[in-house]
Amino acid sequence: QNMRIKPPENRPVPEPGPDEVLLKMHSVGICGSDVHFWQNGQIGHYKVTKPMVLGHEASGRVVKVGAAVRHLKVGDRVAVEPGVPREMDEFFKNGRYNLSPSIFFCATPPDDGNLCQYYKQNSNFCYKLPDNLTFEEGALIEPLSVAIHACRRAGVTLGSTVLICGAGPIGLVCLLVAKAMGASRVIITDLLEERLTVAKKLGADFQLTVKRGHGAQQLAKTVEDMLGAQPHITIECTGAESSIQTAIYATRSGGVVVLVGLGAEMATVPLLNAALREVDIRGVFRYCNTWPTAIDMLASGQVNVKPLVTHRFPLEQAVQAFETTRQGLGIKVMLKCDQNDQNP
Amino acid sequence: QNMRIKPPENRPVPEPGPDEVLLKMHSVGICGSDVHFWQNGQIGHYKVTKPMVLGHEASGRVVKVGAAVRHLKVGDRVAVEPGVPREMDEFFKNGRYNLSPSIFFCATPPDDGNLCQYYKQNSNFCYKLPDNLTFEEGALIEPLSVAIHACRRAGVTLGSTVLICGAGPIGLVCLLVAKAMGASRVIITDLLEERLTVAKKLGADFQLTVKRGHGAQQLAKTVEDMLGAQPHITIECTGAESSIQTAIYATRSGGVVVLVGLGAEMATVPLLNAALREVDIRGVFRYCNTWPTAIDMLASGQVNVKPLVTHRFPLEQAVQAFETTRQGLGIKVMLKCDQNDQNP
Amino acid sequence: QNMRIKPPENRPVPEPGPDEVLLKMHSVGICGSDVHFWQNGQIGHYKVTKPMVLGHEASGRVVKVGAAVRHLKVGDRVAVEPGVPREMDEFFKNGRYNLSPSIFFCATPPDDGNLCQYYKQNSNFCYKLPDNLTFEEGALIEPLSVAIHACRRAGVTLGSTVLICGAGPIGLVCLLVAKAMGASRVIITDLLEERLTVAKKLGADFQLTVKRGHGAQQLAKTVEDMLGAQPHITIECTGAESSIQTAIYATRSGGVVVLVGLGAEMATVPLLNAALREVDIRGVFRYCNTWPTAIDMLASGQVNVKPLVTHRFPLEQAVQAFETTRQGLGIKVMLKCDQNDQNP
Amino acid sequence: QNMRIKPPENRPVPEPGPDEVLLKMHSVGICGSDVHFWQNGQIGHYKVTKPMVLGHEASGRVVKVGAAVRHLKVGDRVAVEPGVPREMDEFFKNGRYNLSPSIFFCATPPDDGNLCQYYKQNSNFCYKLPDNLTFEEGALIEPLSVAIHACRRAGVTLGSTVLICGAGPIGLVCLLVAKAMGASRVIITDLLEERLTVAKKLGADFQLTVKRGHGAQQLAKTVEDMLGAQPHITIECTGAESSIQTAIYATRSGGVVVLVGLGAEMATVPLLNAALREVDIRGVFRYCNTWPTAIDMLASGQVNVKPLVTHRFPLEQAVQAFETTRQGLGIKVMLKCDQNDQNP
Repeated sequence: QNMRIKPPENRPVPEPGPDEVLLKMHSVGICGSDVHFWQNGQIGHYKVTKPMVLGHEASGRVVKVGAAVRHLKVGDRVAVEPGVPREMDEFFKNGRYNLSPSIFFCATPPDDGNLCQYYKQNSNFCYKLPDNLTFEEGALIEPLSVAIHACRRAGVTLGSTVLICGAGPIGLVCLLVAKAMGASRVIITDLLEERLTVAKKLGADFQLTVKRGHGAQQLAKTVEDMLGAQPHITIECTGAESSIQTAIYATRSGGVVVLVGLGAEMATVPLLNAALREVDIRGVFRYCNTWPTAIDMLASGQVNVKPLVTHRFPLEQAVQAFETTRQGLGIKVMLKCDQNDQNP
Repeated sequence: QNMRIKPPENRPVPEPGPDEVLLKMHSVGICGSDVHFWQNGQIGHYKVTKPMVLGHEASGRVVKVGAAVRHLKVGDRVAVEPGVPREMDEFFKNGRYNLSPSIFFCATPPDDGNLCQYYKQNSNFCYKLPDNLTFEEGALIEPLSVAIHACRRAGVTLGSTVLICGAGPIGLVCLLVAKAMGASRVIITDLLEERLTVAKKLGADFQLTVKRGHGAQQLAKTVEDMLGAQPHITIECTGAESSIQTAIYATRSGGVVVLVGLGAEMATVPLLNAALREVDIRGVFRYCNTWPTAIDMLASGQVNVKPLVTHRFPLEQAVQAFETTRQGLGIKVMLKCDQNDQNP
Repeated sequence: QNMRIKPPENRPVPEPGPDEVLLKMHSVGICGSDVHFWQNGQIGHYKVTKPMVLGHEASGRVVKVGAAVRHLKVGDRVAVEPGVPREMDEFFKNGRYNLSPSIFFCATPPDDGNLCQYYKQNSNFCYKLPDNLTFEEGALIEPLSVAIHACRRAGVTLGSTVLICGAGPIGLVCLLVAKAMGASRVIITDLLEERLTVAKKLGADFQLTVKRGHGAQQLAKTVEDMLGAQPHITIECTGAESSIQTAIYATRSGGVVVLVGLGAEMATVPLLNAALREVDIRGVFRYCNTWPTAIDMLASGQVNVKPLVTHRFPLEQAVQAFETTRQGLGIKVMLKCDQNDQNP
Repeated sequence: QNMRIKPPENRPVPEPGPDEVLLKMHSVGICGSDVHFWQNGQIGHYKVTKPMVLGHEASGRVVKVGAAVRHLKVGDRVAVEPGVPREMDEFFKNGRYNLSPSIFFCATPPDDGNLCQYYKQNSNFCYKLPDNLTFEEGALIEPLSVAIHACRRAGVTLGSTVLICGAGPIGLVCLLVAKAMGASRVIITDLLEERLTVAKKLGADFQLTVKRGHGAQQLAKTVEDMLGAQPHITIECTGAESSIQTAIYATRSGGVVVLVGLGAEMATVPLLNAALREVDIRGVFRYCNTWPTAIDMLASGQVNVKPLVTHRFPLEQAVQAFETTRQGLGIKVMLKCDQNDQNP
């Protein structure tokens, strides 16, 4: 069922609670999941049942601070972590708050997102941007966080060889992060040549164009031949069953497959092959503890995400912006929420 | 294709090389894989193409030592680790020698097993038994090692709650080891009530009889209800697709499913459910670095495997012994290779 | 400077906030640090500068719940985790909230403890006791948590051999926990024979009476001789410089020394010996994420802490109770805060 | 006692055994330990008691292969890992073969080094150099391995902030490796301004000149002020007691101090400060499993060690070369063993 995307509407400016800050939003990126909710009205068991504000890749400026807030002040430029745990449960106490079942998450129904002009947020999940980072870099920390979490779960480290399946926005940030974590060689696959060209510019060592009908074991063999050995790690960003199969066959014994792409509930995969070679299969659900790391990496210049932004639209042209993402044009589309400052 | 199991035959007594010892074998347990090779002639891509000695759960006494051997002497009673790396490759150097592709392994074609009277073995993979361990305990270190490796891979630790799917010999040793590693509650499942009765005697906290046709999600819910929460860890010992599905649904977010049972090459499983809840899926391939640990655990009385031996046959009655295992009678069948000493 | 311990006085019953519960306290154990604050007025840079309520090993019953509390209700029996983070800082988000510099901690100045009749506490740090646990077991979870955290930091696992330096209350709970985590052999040392006798009863495999003047290397050699090999892990519970030296020399290459005992700020130790043998030195600061684990272990009978309670006093006789602990009599002294229920 | 360094002498060309290769040596770097043995005749309990060949940072060309060697052939250019385990002991089986007490190690008495024209070595510890690496890069893998092992032990990862104490050759390679592993900011200290200038050129973000007499806590505070927060990790490369003290005070709670520099057997350090903040102290002993990683990093251009070579001497001028290193001139001095090819 195709949802109707509504043009911007006026809602009351919210009042921050004691631990919250009110933000004047600046830049909000559009994610594939935003488009998915728009087009399909649901992702898995998350269903849109009432009008919902989209957007969760965001940055803005503090315009009001709650009484108990100490680390932020009016005027601070911040990046917004869109997931905020509601309960101090076992997952939160253990440092894996992304797994907390009751977590608030921007633009996952029924929680509203932050593609708007004014947004209030728990101050502990707003992170001050250093002067040398732009608002757009602040917004890009969200997709970058997916990559950081995926590469951490994968255990990418010095000398890792990495296969990335899929050269969309998430595959590309995984490429950047894997390299920054010390990967010596990254090979990336996609159906589309032009995406691989972008990946090459961003640092991929090898590109492999996948054609529908290629067998998983045959592709795995090609990967091994190109790298000179099986990759230690595969980061699967497509969610396609055939690609998960390739991921398993391709990965070196004792290695790791990380599942980032979302596919069907059930998948038919060579689990025995993985098991007998102790290739671990690990999923990722969003991220945790990534914003400070991402800010440090961007501020020190270890990672450069600026080339990912290929389109910008003012908030008023949100429909066109979403349409652009839906058509797969460019890499990342930014919505500019501040009429007085449409700079990066 | 059903292989013919041959009655014992005479072969020349081998001469140990400089790093080897010659053993007079004492007790050799029969493993499901021995029966599988006998009945089917192959497991996965390992095919029996010429007469092969079976047996890899073994202990014996040193009767001859190679010139370079320092840590063993004639008369020592030893347990035999059946896998011996042939190459000093990356896996061996990294401490995961079980993954070395060229490893020698008893009774995996084309390598002969040690169900015989005299057997020569690399001395570094023979471990001296303390006086308070029997030969049979020495032989049982092999299945115990499967459980140790599985529980290590699972990360069982203090307070872990564990679901074990399957109450056969491997499920039972996993139960013993999980408890010894600090698991607070273990729930075990099987199709057969009598196996669950054995599991209860060995320390299982909950038993769940599975009926064919039970849905995976329904079983997962029953496990949660019985434990009062989802288990942190599931150790899947059946290899059945439906059981792997249950394992994934049943495991707590952030937990681990370990695949011990061997099933079909391809399996249809709820991979998305595992991925979105960061339930890791890890296989095990045999074991590494388990013999010293197992000896310490047995010698200190932390684990008691003696009740697992339910049948004993002299080597001469090997055919009956294999038939007993094939019929699933009892838990572990021991073959006694030393005509002068058929004690445990 | 010796502080004056005041007899119980009347203070107003506190009112719980929205996330808090009010507890009627039942059992509160006395810790060495309580005695230290009483006798010396400070530990390290924590100084008592105004009257402070002591006590942080506690359990009680919920008598009032804040408006936002969901998981507890009036009548619930709970164990109290005495450290409650005040800020959602990097340590809390990473799952190591014990390291949060601004944490509230019972009976660490300036924060009051819970040796009183009515106490309010953040409900997220109160844990419901199952019916088969006594209030005293609930109170003993605090020292047990020190041991759990220490053994986790040490990496105790199946087959670990462990040296514990010091057979006081903390050394003894470390012994219990190390065994429950799969340690095959534990050797414990102390200056006092009678403490070692208690340790033996609680499951120590070897006891070593230390005499002042014993050299560290000589003691290390004795430990190795008794165990048959160097221990993988040493848990140092005395804080004495000579004992830390022994700990380092005694531990096997690649092993771990955990520092639990608190000594002087500066210590002269064989750091080169530790470094060249890759013996890691790790401290522990209180604990985190231990209460649920401890409850599970006690409820399942994997650990039995009941024998640790050797003395009980009603709250009104607090001075005598503290005096008993000061003199080192018995193991653990319990204060009974509920006049109507002085049961364990 | 000052040893006499002898000019090159003629020894018979050795004959490789079945698992060995004979190498014609090409480039051998001089390490501080080589100079130390020359000047002092011992390091710790390793004493030179008879003439010993120095050198353990080496590369050469295969000129003869043993009968059992499969992965190398005559003509291959190889880097030499100077430590070769002699026994298949617990350390080797566990993947930490550097800790094996009986390991052979080049130029550690009584084992001869490889600063010579022909050298035979276990082929499993010779690693083929890709065409795009020079012999000198091959020789530099040895000091690079110290850094890789240290950074691995430290757990350097994406966004780590790192303090490196000492900007000598080892401090500099630690800097390169920490950056390659994702460190966002590295601050480096030294007594000598000129060394810090080199460090800056190689990528250090901050340089701190230490003056004798600076207090450890004061220096720690300066580090925190420069970085804006305490570093997650400190890599101590000087061995000086005062520097170890600074390392502990400077490191963030929950962080790691790695001891690379070798100092006196006993050191007086603020162990309590480390313990109460859970700052782990870890030593490093040489390295293991680093050569393949180093080759991949160098071949892919992730790390560039070429600027480290500041002096070159033909083997015949070994005395001058050693004298140059002894005086601390430049960074790395290379001896060129092949009269026909003195290229890098």
